[in-house]
Amino acid sequence: MSEPRTGSKPPIQQPEARPTALDLPPGELSPEMRAYLARCEEKIGFVPNVLAAYAHDDAKLSAFAAFYNGLMLAPSGLSKLEREMIAVVVSAANRCFYCVTAHGAAVRQLSGDPVLGDTLAVSWRAARLAPRHVAMLAFAEKVALASFSIAEADRQALRDAGFSDVDIWDVAAVASFFAMSNRLASATDMRPNAEYHAMARRGAA
Amino acid sequence: MSEPRTGSKPPIQQPEARPTALDLPPGELSPEMRAYLARCEEKIGFVPNVLAAYAHDDAKLSAFAAFYNGLMLAPSGLSKLEREMIAVVVSAANRCFYCVTAHGAAVRQLSGDPVLGDTLAVSWRAARLAPRHVAMLAFAEKVALASFSIAEADRQALRDAGFSDVDIWDVAAVASFFAMSNRLASATDMRPNAEYHAMARRGAA
Amino acid sequence: MSEPRTGSKPPIQQPEARPTALDLPPGELSPEMRAYLARCEEKIGFVPNVLAAYAHDDAKLSAFAAFYNGLMLAPSGLSKLEREMIAVVVSAANRCFYCVTAHGAAVRQLSGDPVLGDTLAVSWRAARLAPRHVAMLAFAEKVALASFSIAEADRQALRDAGFSDVDIWDVAAVASFFAMSNRLASATDMRPNAEYHAMARRGAA
Amino acid sequence: MSEPRTGSKPPIQQPEARPTALDLPPGELSPEMRAYLARCEEKIGFVPNVLAAYAHDDAKLSAFAAFYNGLMLAPSGLSKLEREMIAVVVSAANRCFYCVTAHGAAVRQLSGDPVLGDTLAVSWRAARLAPRHVAMLAFAEKVALASFSIAEADRQALRDAGFSDVDIWDVAAVASFFAMSNRLASATDMRPNAEYHAMARRGAA
Amino acid sequence: MSEPRTGSKPPIQQPEARPTALDLPPGELSPEMRAYLARCEEKIGFVPNVLAAYAHDDAKLSAFAAFYNGLMLAPSGLSKLEREMIAVVVSAANRCFYCVTAHGAAVRQLSGDPVLGDTLAVSWRAARLAPRHVAMLAFAEKVALASFSIAEADRQALRDAGFSDVDIWDVAAVASFFAMSNRLASATDMRPNAEYHAMARRGAA
Amino acid sequence: MSEPRTGSKPPIQQPEARPTALDLPPGELSPEMRAYLARCEEKIGFVPNVLAAYAHDDAKLSAFAAFYNGLMLAPSGLSKLEREMIAVVVSAANRCFYCVTAHGAAVRQLSGDPVLGDTLAVSWRAARLAPRHVAMLAFAEKVALASFSIAEADRQALRDAGFSDVDIWDVAAVASFFAMSNRLASATDMRPNAEYHAMARRGAA
Repeated sequence: MSEPRTGSKPPIQQPEARPTALDLPPGELSPEMRAYLARCEEKIGFVPNVLAAYAHDDAKLSAFAAFYNGLMLAPSGLSKLEREMIAVVVSAANRCFYCVTAHGAAVRQLSGDPVLGDTLAVSWRAARLAPRHVAMLAFAEKVALASFSIAEADRQALRDAGFSDVDIWDVAAVASFFAMSNRLASATDMRPNAEYHAMARRGAA
Repeated sequence: MSEPRTGSKPPIQQPEARPTALDLPPGELSPEMRAYLARCEEKIGFVPNVLAAYAHDDAKLSAFAAFYNGLMLAPSGLSKLEREMIAVVVSAANRCFYCVTAHGAAVRQLSGDPVLGDTLAVSWRAARLAPRHVAMLAFAEKVALASFSIAEADRQALRDAGFSDVDIWDVAAVASFFAMSNRLASATDMRPNAEYHAMARRGAA
Repeated sequence: MSEPRTGSKPPIQQPEARPTALDLPPGELSPEMRAYLARCEEKIGFVPNVLAAYAHDDAKLSAFAAFYNGLMLAPSGLSKLEREMIAVVVSAANRCFYCVTAHGAAVRQLSGDPVLGDTLAVSWRAARLAPRHVAMLAFAEKVALASFSIAEADRQALRDAGFSDVDIWDVAAVASFFAMSNRLASATDMRPNAEYHAMARRGAA
Repeated sequence: MSEPRTGSKPPIQQPEARPTALDLPPGELSPEMRAYLARCEEKIGFVPNVLAAYAHDDAKLSAFAAFYNGLMLAPSGLSKLEREMIAVVVSAANRCFYCVTAHGAAVRQLSGDPVLGDTLAVSWRAARLAPRHVAMLAFAEKVALASFSIAEADRQALRDAGFSDVDIWDVAAVASFFAMSNRLASATDMRPNAEYHAMARRGAA
Repeated sequence: MSEPRTGSKPPIQQPEARPTALDLPPGELSPEMRAYLARCEEKIGFVPNVLAAYAHDDAKLSAFAAFYNGLMLAPSGLSKLEREMIAVVVSAANRCFYCVTAHGAAVRQLSGDPVLGDTLAVSWRAARLAPRHVAMLAFAEKVALASFSIAEADRQALRDAGFSDVDIWDVAAVASFFAMSNRLASATDMRPNAEYHAMARRGAA
Repeated sequence: MSEPRTGSKPPIQQPEARPTALDLPPGELSPEMRAYLARCEEKIGFVPNVLAAYAHDDAKLSAFAAFYNGLMLAPSGLSKLEREMIAVVVSAANRCFYCVTAHGAAVRQLSGDPVLGDTLAVSWRAARLAPRHVAMLAFAEKVALASFSIAEADRQALRDAGFSDVDIWDVAAVASFFAMSNRLASATDMRPNAEYHAMARRGAA
């Protein structure tokens, strides 16, 4: 009786022509933004679809890129890997396919540990983490799921784990940023570039 | 037996010395950002605490201001009032005191209708809105509360109410932005400036 | 491109002809109830719509008024302001437009602090409250949102904050009453009288 | 290996000395209230603990009794059984032991069908009900669980099932009343009288 | 005005012809399974509908019976009553009519205390339980409602209450089993046999 | 300022010595079960930790294996891939690290499409599926998250998508089975075998 019906085999998931489900006419890009997208392509191998989507409006692409890079790449008391760990945990809480895929790849790359990426994408509680990271991700998850209930005791728990007040701002800012990005991606059905899936699957371990 | 106990009268809520519960040492601001804050003070009468908080880092203040202004003030198929209505509804869903207060004032100002601001801050379903605004706020609320479940039918409902695909991006982007702002404000206990509360309480009606 | 579309300006929110969305033929009121409504009008300046709605049935209006007044106005270990604070916090948890509006006005009036009313209506955790009121509102919110999970430890926390067992009954009874009132108001789309919105907006501060 | 440990047998659940977990000194009752409690005892065989609890305050007992009787026993477009069905469904949604027990007994008594009572206490969707009762209980459950989201379409569904606008008020009022009663009972750990459990267990069927 | 409308009396809940809402053609049963069902009928007085439903497939009935009996009847550090208490608490959390009915009867039978069964079916927190059983049911409820959040501290709480690691496996396994059974029963609208309702209603007390 | 702190690099996630967080003394295995585990090792390359965990009790291992194999491998109107798709979707809803990892690998293997596995593990709504699979997974998710609310219309939607009543039993049974397995795995902190992570990452596409 097994395997008989037409349609019981799901179609292979294809990369899509458009970065989102919206029909956004391409904007006129400034030389700076054209150069920025070219640098992305050179460095990563492709233009991430979130940038391709923002590219319908030069000013918005430019503001988004500056805001994102200031948050995720600028010097901070949080390492880049820590910021990507927050990105994956918040994106998993929001079940955002685009962001779990793209930032899961980043965690694999920065950590050299494909299992860490997989684990954070399902449940950070199942990872074997240091107390610093347990504190950081517990706070980030509360920012994602119940920000109205955050109290002084939650901030103090981060201080007790060695975070400065500026670091706490950064944890809150990164977690909040993905609360935004996840929603914009899900609301527009943003598709992760196919390249992300296979990236950094062979770890250092 | 009534009114007898010490402490049964709550203390008057005072404006606070710091914009948030975090101790963020003031950053060195660029001339551009000093001029920007001066313009805010001149135009609104004070520097909104969200900007005062971001001012611990010149680059982040600058990126935030550009990103915010591009979203909320630049030309769009959504009027400024519509964008502020989304801000209030999302902020109410997240129970963010800073943002409901600041953007509730903006709705009162832009609409000339203090009752509209009050209503959106509690429950937009209780307001008497046109079909365009019901569609817009229903979508924004879904972005705020269950973005993972947004489907093509939700986007189509906005198209049916007269929104273009670029407008849908803007509805999603504004709703998502406040998902971020609400969380950063709650996570840092950001305090609304006292001036917001009384602003535009006498409506045009 | 800004502000162009027909319908992008929301209609001014008008007071409505009927106190609720239901068509409730006016009942025959007893002289006592006619006198009661006249006293309300004299004292407050209008008949609150909750009473106008109950007035479709003389016996129900009379029972409701006695029950309400015994709870909110009779001598109690809780001050009238404390009972109104509970009313606002429970009504905000239930997103009831009628009750947040009417009892928010009462908090402003009794406290002389418009900011306290605004804060409780969004998130009591953002107010700067004494331990007595934190304990009282935490219990009231748990009554509103997860009454089945209340345990002896929750009652003990109120005793530790100085509440007697009769006071605990009163906290529970007031919070439970608004669990009822909020639901009846939302289920019938009860409209707050327009006068509530502007009431006591200028505080003592 | 089975059944070996001390304490693996739970203690028999005993009726308790006090109607609630609170120590409420007995109030001075008026002759009317003494007579009312005596009539209850005569008619039901005992004084329901909700009344015993309210009896710490004569005025509150009197107001509660009038309010309750006007709602549950006075003439209405809803039969007494229908009102008790709403009581059980709302009380089950709130997981209130006192009210499910007391009003479950009432449903068994008024319907002569012990299975109906059992079913409603777990899940009204599992009962085999007429469209009128499906509409009524779906509305009541929404009042219990998400009153803020009730819209005109929900009220219209009751009209379509044959309820008048006054009947809709009554459905909403009964459902809301138990939202209150459930919370007061759970918050004070009110104990159902032991007699309720065995009442009307043999049905007409 | 009372009791007037056609349809205001709900129909008596009848036992149904089929064990579920699905049309499952009866399978060819092996002699072993025929004997097993005959033994059930002899011992309990009827074939429980869960077995009647599984009987559409001999291999599945046989595997289910072995799995169930190994879990609920085999020697264990948990008494049979304790396993049935877990069954009722999990089934109540999932609002499963079939399982609350069938295992509520089992709790009444094994404990000789009908009030215990009733209490667990609504809210185990309202029962007067020993610390061992509070720990056991708190863990079981967390397994039912938020298994992803179970941490070492939760397992340690069971150890502190006297459970061995093998016992903890059994608590988790029984709670998880009913997470399955409840869902299969609800998804197929499985009907409890009418006999369960009246079983063991007269307790030892 | 970046990357400075000790501990800011998370430790590599190591496979663990024990299959779960519980100390379960190894049971005496029957020749049949020893042979079964040997066959698993031969076929898959390792003994899945769920079987290693059950191996503390020969009878329970045997019953679990029979029950699991009857459900997931026996002939059915659902293909094996379809059953694994349900497993991943339910396990993602429950955020179960063990099951998402193990059954995500199975989906990659059976479909030859690594993107499908990744997508289902985050959000099946983001996959591009045929109507048959949308109907199947929507039903499975409702079984996982709100089984009490399943109604005849939900079963009919499966029939309309071409499922027979026996198929509907199988969809419900597989979804319910993982509601169990996820909870047992999370409650005991079951660790997925390290081999699962890299399995079938290169798809047919």
